[in-house]
Amino acid sequence: MKNSFGQNVTVTVFGESHGAGVGAVLDGMPAGIPVDEAFIKHQLSLRRPSGDISTPRVEADNYIIYSGVLGGFTTGTPICVVVPNENTNSKDYAADRFIVRPSHADFVAFKKYNGFEDYRGGGHFSGRVTAGVVAVGAVAISALKQKGIKIGTHISKCAGVDDAAFANYETEIDALNNMSFAVLDNAKGEQMKEKILSAKAECDSVGGVLETAVLGLPVGVGEPWFDTLEGMLSHALFSIPAVKGVEFGLGFGIADLMGSQANDELEVKNGEIITKTNNNGGINGGISNGMPVVLRCAVKPTPTIAKPQSTVNFSTNENTVLQSLGRHDPCIVHRARVVVDSMVAITLCDALTAKFGTDWWQK
Amino acid sequence: MKNSFGQNVTVTVFGESHGAGVGAVLDGMPAGIPVDEAFIKHQLSLRRPSGDISTPRVEADNYIIYSGVLGGFTTGTPICVVVPNENTNSKDYAADRFIVRPSHADFVAFKKYNGFEDYRGGGHFSGRVTAGVVAVGAVAISALKQKGIKIGTHISKCAGVDDAAFANYETEIDALNNMSFAVLDNAKGEQMKEKILSAKAECDSVGGVLETAVLGLPVGVGEPWFDTLEGMLSHALFSIPAVKGVEFGLGFGIADLMGSQANDELEVKNGEIITKTNNNGGINGGISNGMPVVLRCAVKPTPTIAKPQSTVNFSTNENTVLQSLGRHDPCIVHRARVVVDSMVAITLCDALTAKFGTDWWQK
Amino acid sequence: MKNSFGQNVTVTVFGESHGAGVGAVLDGMPAGIPVDEAFIKHQLSLRRPSGDISTPRVEADNYIIYSGVLGGFTTGTPICVVVPNENTNSKDYAADRFIVRPSHADFVAFKKYNGFEDYRGGGHFSGRVTAGVVAVGAVAISALKQKGIKIGTHISKCAGVDDAAFANYETEIDALNNMSFAVLDNAKGEQMKEKILSAKAECDSVGGVLETAVLGLPVGVGEPWFDTLEGMLSHALFSIPAVKGVEFGLGFGIADLMGSQANDELEVKNGEIITKTNNNGGINGGISNGMPVVLRCAVKPTPTIAKPQSTVNFSTNENTVLQSLGRHDPCIVHRARVVVDSMVAITLCDALTAKFGTDWWQK
Amino acid sequence: MKNSFGQNVTVTVFGESHGAGVGAVLDGMPAGIPVDEAFIKHQLSLRRPSGDISTPRVEADNYIIYSGVLGGFTTGTPICVVVPNENTNSKDYAADRFIVRPSHADFVAFKKYNGFEDYRGGGHFSGRVTAGVVAVGAVAISALKQKGIKIGTHISKCAGVDDAAFANYETEIDALNNMSFAVLDNAKGEQMKEKILSAKAECDSVGGVLETAVLGLPVGVGEPWFDTLEGMLSHALFSIPAVKGVEFGLGFGIADLMGSQANDELEVKNGEIITKTNNNGGINGGISNGMPVVLRCAVKPTPTIAKPQSTVNFSTNENTVLQSLGRHDPCIVHRARVVVDSMVAITLCDALTAKFGTDWWQK
Repeated sequence: MKNSFGQNVTVTVFGESHGAGVGAVLDGMPAGIPVDEAFIKHQLSLRRPSGDISTPRVEADNYIIYSGVLGGFTTGTPICVVVPNENTNSKDYAADRFIVRPSHADFVAFKKYNGFEDYRGGGHFSGRVTAGVVAVGAVAISALKQKGIKIGTHISKCAGVDDAAFANYETEIDALNNMSFAVLDNAKGEQMKEKILSAKAECDSVGGVLETAVLGLPVGVGEPWFDTLEGMLSHALFSIPAVKGVEFGLGFGIADLMGSQANDELEVKNGEIITKTNNNGGINGGISNGMPVVLRCAVKPTPTIAKPQSTVNFSTNENTVLQSLGRHDPCIVHRARVVVDSMVAITLCDALTAKFGTDWWQK
Repeated sequence: MKNSFGQNVTVTVFGESHGAGVGAVLDGMPAGIPVDEAFIKHQLSLRRPSGDISTPRVEADNYIIYSGVLGGFTTGTPICVVVPNENTNSKDYAADRFIVRPSHADFVAFKKYNGFEDYRGGGHFSGRVTAGVVAVGAVAISALKQKGIKIGTHISKCAGVDDAAFANYETEIDALNNMSFAVLDNAKGEQMKEKILSAKAECDSVGGVLETAVLGLPVGVGEPWFDTLEGMLSHALFSIPAVKGVEFGLGFGIADLMGSQANDELEVKNGEIITKTNNNGGINGGISNGMPVVLRCAVKPTPTIAKPQSTVNFSTNENTVLQSLGRHDPCIVHRARVVVDSMVAITLCDALTAKFGTDWWQK
Repeated sequence: MKNSFGQNVTVTVFGESHGAGVGAVLDGMPAGIPVDEAFIKHQLSLRRPSGDISTPRVEADNYIIYSGVLGGFTTGTPICVVVPNENTNSKDYAADRFIVRPSHADFVAFKKYNGFEDYRGGGHFSGRVTAGVVAVGAVAISALKQKGIKIGTHISKCAGVDDAAFANYETEIDALNNMSFAVLDNAKGEQMKEKILSAKAECDSVGGVLETAVLGLPVGVGEPWFDTLEGMLSHALFSIPAVKGVEFGLGFGIADLMGSQANDELEVKNGEIITKTNNNGGINGGISNGMPVVLRCAVKPTPTIAKPQSTVNFSTNENTVLQSLGRHDPCIVHRARVVVDSMVAITLCDALTAKFGTDWWQK
Repeated sequence: MKNSFGQNVTVTVFGESHGAGVGAVLDGMPAGIPVDEAFIKHQLSLRRPSGDISTPRVEADNYIIYSGVLGGFTTGTPICVVVPNENTNSKDYAADRFIVRPSHADFVAFKKYNGFEDYRGGGHFSGRVTAGVVAVGAVAISALKQKGIKIGTHISKCAGVDDAAFANYETEIDALNNMSFAVLDNAKGEQMKEKILSAKAECDSVGGVLETAVLGLPVGVGEPWFDTLEGMLSHALFSIPAVKGVEFGLGFGIADLMGSQANDELEVKNGEIITKTNNNGGINGGISNGMPVVLRCAVKPTPTIAKPQSTVNFSTNENTVLQSLGRHDPCIVHRARVVVDSMVAITLCDALTAKFGTDWWQK
């Protein structure tokens, strides 16, 4: 499997930026999960560019559900959703196709696919492909919701500005899921947006860190080796274009602590065993321990910038300079958020099904 | 698959800390790869505890190759290596089995396996299981060497002490692979060891960061979605007990840069296309770009410490205090190094086989 | 994975008989394979009902290639083809949904999917879903052709009438691939059609056996255990609705022979090692031996018949009688032929890629 | 994955006929399944050669459980069982290594593994490798037993002699599982043995057909596409050396019937929905329907015979004659029986876990 992921619940992505459409097949979901089209539209809207801080290429994202849904519920068979491409720019991509856009996949795609790759607008490497993932991810999120599991992500850092930390997961996650620019502290969010606009004005771009929390995951999900929760989640998350790091709990920060500081001591509280801290991010030995699962993704600054950059033309093997004057995002961190949520949801549906079976969801 | 990983090259791990043995099956490796038993022993020695900075439990690691090797070469069929356990402590683990060791997998294992887990010494969650991975990983490393691909890892940080950065990959990697405490700057290494001994004296432990570089990987390895090089490598690396973060290139550091700072500009040098910087760690769009692949793993401090810790007894559901006076490591960062190398090697063999086929290795 | 198959080359099917469409995603195919739309249409025409011996439901099969193809060649990324459903009968399937059609999947689908299954016209279990497989299978067949590998299938038996045996694979395969009712002996084909029409007149149906030969497969494809050629091919072929047996070489017939009769003796002919007979169907130890791969699929008679049948209503748990007066096929053997070819082609692309790699196809 | 099979429950085989040992890793089995060593020994005894009708190479099959079992129960982690080879003949296999034994894998192995294959006694292609499968298969059979599912196989045909048909599954399965030569009609069994001895006297060998029935499988196991019960089972069964055909229900026999004869009509009996016949072998649309699952495997005559056979020497590329005077079986049908049972059990554990989850087994 290359563009597919998961064992019990499997997602397959397809599509190119300027082809007929992008989409995904989500298979292995149980029958009877409500498919709320308003929710799918809401999720797609969170991914869609909006306003000054995004690219002016805005697609309506009118999707087609080709299979797996009947009368508003999943049927138990594969769910194929296609999002046709509508606003494909008429720009002649062929002219520039041999000039590498730094930190993009142009060169590796050319080499890997021997010149047959769809080079228009990044082709299959485009962030546009994530629209399919978000569409089917909405179904995964709905399934988790029925089991009392919820996911929320905030922009923990953007353009060097830190957001507040989670203080109350329950209420904050609900709020985040209704925000197009998901921060815990709105003042910080405004500062981030200003920095994004400054970068844009300077023909530059910015990156950031997304922090995700999962509530309600039962104890015992994940495996000791290979299909650890961390391994499965990171595998999925590194597919999101621009993600260059994934960490759980304190992540890289834990490396600087002493064991006595890092360890999560336990206590019995209201009859339940909990940890006093959550430095391990809800996962021990690869397996959920009942505490919130907390993870962070590093998102690099959008590689496409209007500033001139040194690069090469690989048809002539000569040095050249590139200035990308087309439509692009000065920041994709806020748009990547819902893709992270979708990926996490799909991966957890897979891991839960391994433990509890497909039939469990129908109870 | 749970305790198996990989598609074209697959590794399966088995074993418990105090069972009959630990081991691994490596399948999909081509026939004709030299199996150098001295090299396997060398690799196992790098994992083995040694001296003051490690646990006093030292195993001879006398392994048995049950299959897949004939006359010093791989046969092309599954290679099963078992490392029998010899020095299993007579300590009565049963006495303490319901007292959770903080940040260990005891509690999740009990819940997941319903009380049937092998609880002795961490069972299947023990770092001891990595011995099998290291043994078969030696074969993967040998295969890569034949194709001009080499892997080296140094302790980039330990107990808060930073090692030097890579300056010359070629020579430094060779040196690292012969060091039991792998650092680029020996003076820094001495400082790290002192800190480890201090931690030990304080009944505490320390963590660190391992940085790995891969040289010689051809352009075009990895897939755009899901089986990205980052996704596959992180999936494997998070199986190593204590790893809580994985990043590529600048990793989390890239989130703070502007696009113009983060992007790897290109140039033609000696007729070849290279990037001037390597902030993306040799990977664009999930695919190798011909530059060194650079990644880092955050390793948490050893959870087992001799300091008293608050915890619970989950058979009585009561709070209690645990003081682990047994054999344990004040630091496992240096021992985890060869496990990282092994995992990276196995994963790259898998990714290379996807692109080039099994037969390619035999040419 | 449930509705996906293959490792290096993976096919994912989706769709229901009366939903928006059916389709398939073919992933892992190399870049640069010619995508000949006339050939895709030809292949779909072989699957389409035609004339008296088929169902009157005829779809135009106007397909949409959503991804993975640019300028008439594969790009190396997933190929999604959707065949929208157009001629969906207005018949009220809801009325009869609880009356089990004998030997169909109605009852198991209801139980498995808890009443949420798409029950209209067999839903996901309908033979209509094979249209997607045939569309993407055409690409796999084209890829094999470039490597000198060809596949042909004839109706070895239908309604009790035996076709002639293969006498000259090369020329016969070419002829078969242009016939809508694929037989080696046309007189036998006419007898089969007469029997089909008789069955239809009697409100009944017939089955048969399809025999497939593959020429040009190199020695060494397939694995000794599990991913044997036989195992992989049979796994794929049993997905075709109505297939109840798969055999290779002499198949069940070999069980009655002595070893000295069954063994394929070898000889050197024109400098090449060949077997004098091909009782093992080109496969030893799960691996291709260079002789033609020969396999047969048993296809049961179409379960939907107009004769009254005893059955049950599972909403009332009462016995009842069903007479299926709708549109159906008195025989699907001839239509299943191209589905077999497609499945075999996709499976061989997968097995070849394991051995030779993705890049091999581009040479 | 090559020598591994299954998704939720995975079996990995390793070993060669004349290496240190053969074995298997069974992963994904739930914790708490009783591991009855007497039963493992019993199962291994059914596979072991015995008496005149088998090879004189008899191994004690003293196995080692390296992992995954504690105190007589599975722990939930991978179960590795090794069966060391003891009675490896001192015969110099090297002398004959280039002379192809007809219908064996010698030639394909040489080509596939480039001369590095373990050629001694068939190496990894030897039936000896099935000992590992039988050992871990015993655990799978025990797990199924706890859920009321039982498997039985009889020699439906051997050397042209037909056994009686199943008349009472419940009692007959129990009896078969205690017979070393598993037939329903002992008189027929004696005729088969006579024919085997005749073949042996003539330096020849015989084949046969094994028929398997599974009782107690719940409705709804298996998937509509690809992971159909038929597809999964056949995939596993074709790994058993010598199996050349797999069919379900009436199998190839169904091809000759009319739909009205082949269809399984339904009725309500004692409040339950059952089919009056079981021509589909308990499977509709790839999914279990609650009736006994019935399948048959064609087993070819042992290829190794003492009669002279024409063959080639592939080091000299010359024709030659081979007469195999070593130790071999005139028939392996009766020994293959327990391998079929083991494979079916492992595959069903996998399919059941997909539907019900790992935790279900612990209830």
